[in-house]
Amino acid sequence: MKKITHSHRPLILITNDDGIQAKGLQQVAEFLKPLGDIVVVAPDGPRSGQSSAITVAMPLRMKVLDEQKGFCRICTNGTPVDCIKLSMNVLLDCRPDLIVSGINHGSNSGVSVVYSGTMGAVTEGTLLHIPSIGFSLCNHKADADFSPCRDLVIDICQKALNSPAWPQCVGLNINIPDTPRLNGMKICRAAQGYWTEEYDCRVDPHGREYFWLTGSFKNNEPDADDTDEYWLDRGYATIVPCSTDRSASGLLPAFASILGA
Amino acid sequence: MKKITHSHRPLILITNDDGIQAKGLQQVAEFLKPLGDIVVVAPDGPRSGQSSAITVAMPLRMKVLDEQKGFCRICTNGTPVDCIKLSMNVLLDCRPDLIVSGINHGSNSGVSVVYSGTMGAVTEGTLLHIPSIGFSLCNHKADADFSPCRDLVIDICQKALNSPAWPQCVGLNINIPDTPRLNGMKICRAAQGYWTEEYDCRVDPHGREYFWLTGSFKNNEPDADDTDEYWLDRGYATIVPCSTDRSASGLLPAFASILGA
Repeated sequence: MKKITHSHRPLILITNDDGIQAKGLQQVAEFLKPLGDIVVVAPDGPRSGQSSAITVAMPLRMKVLDEQKGFCRICTNGTPVDCIKLSMNVLLDCRPDLIVSGINHGSNSGVSVVYSGTMGAVTEGTLLHIPSIGFSLCNHKADADFSPCRDLVIDICQKALNSPAWPQCVGLNINIPDTPRLNGMKICRAAQGYWTEEYDCRVDPHGREYFWLTGSFKNNEPDADDTDEYWLDRGYATIVPCSTDRSASGLLPAFASILGA
Repeated sequence: MKKITHSHRPLILITNDDGIQAKGLQQVAEFLKPLGDIVVVAPDGPRSGQSSAITVAMPLRMKVLDEQKGFCRICTNGTPVDCIKLSMNVLLDCRPDLIVSGINHGSNSGVSVVYSGTMGAVTEGTLLHIPSIGFSLCNHKADADFSPCRDLVIDICQKALNSPAWPQCVGLNINIPDTPRLNGMKICRAAQGYWTEEYDCRVDPHGREYFWLTGSFKNNEPDADDTDEYWLDRGYATIVPCSTDRSASGLLPAFASILGA
């Protein structure tokens, strides 16, 4: 596959988990065109809930949909993380200056970050020490209005491109409430909780049961004013810095004591 | 679907990402039978690299393969996380006392924890505040010898079942070197790094390119003697406590300064 060459401008790699046709993806690419060369590498269809999944058991393919100077668009049959890996290893002739994932149709706040394919791509970029940002709008609809996100997205991406002190090993999970006018933005942590009542149980025409994933988020700390859920409810965009290191280093002594190691 | 009823003994839920037929799963179920009632709910085939992926776009199905007193075995068409969710919401009549994932065929040390379906199931159990442990043997072969893992697996699961002070919100990622005799075990953090040279590029009989995921792990800190990779190389089983909270709370001030929020 021919490498994508880029100009002297910043190189911005964009992906998502809603698929190459999603409005949120097209919108963010438009928003960011003034900031640099854009390469969109996204799944060929929806990959919601794919987390950091990678495709190991089948071969990946890519299809170039647009190849203009400063703007390319490629789809793959893989996951969001596959899109980042293919970009880094096969497509790009240099490291991107910024990775953007989204804008997701629907919230990725609270515990949803664990399951989000949008944030899987951000984790992947962060592991490679590239500034990586996931954007999500709290509106699931295919025709959601992303225009109120525009200024925020451009402002944060501009700062990520220009900041000499952008922290490595941390990606950003940015959620934007579905409102024509933001009250502001808050840097905070993810509200802890879990999903509950998760299946709609049905019977098919042949008498066999099947189960659709559904459910609702149970926030364990609804009153905590340092969490994303709290501020989204109050009309603020939320910015949660997310670590790629899962190790709970503070608990090593506790487990040493319990396990006698 | 009929709920699985259990006795007065501890209830142990077992899953994996190698699929219901994998030797490592069968072996760990055998190891743990003396400790409690066993319910195995596992994918109907390999789901390696599925991370915390959930199935949102198609219905899930389950098939009961074994239904004995104190030992049930069910397969699903979902991911490891789906298996835990179906167990909690549909199959089990009470919360399990312990969730075990594995024994994985192949290491999940270092950064692999991010992609691992084995560890996705552990994350899911941990979000529900159930003691959850992933075991992996550093041998990919289908017929790997899991017998040297036996005493370690039983010892740690027994302690997880008996400890009144088992920390919530943290699951364990346990990797076991492929050796007939362990040098011991170490509680440590995950080695940080990334995967490199990730694709084998080929051309199909019709002249179209395709890409197989491959590559090797690049350890950023090979000399750090508080990491899992370090001790696995030296013949020790490694135990990494893993948090479900991805928030990098220590970096909130840094981003507040950069982003002016």
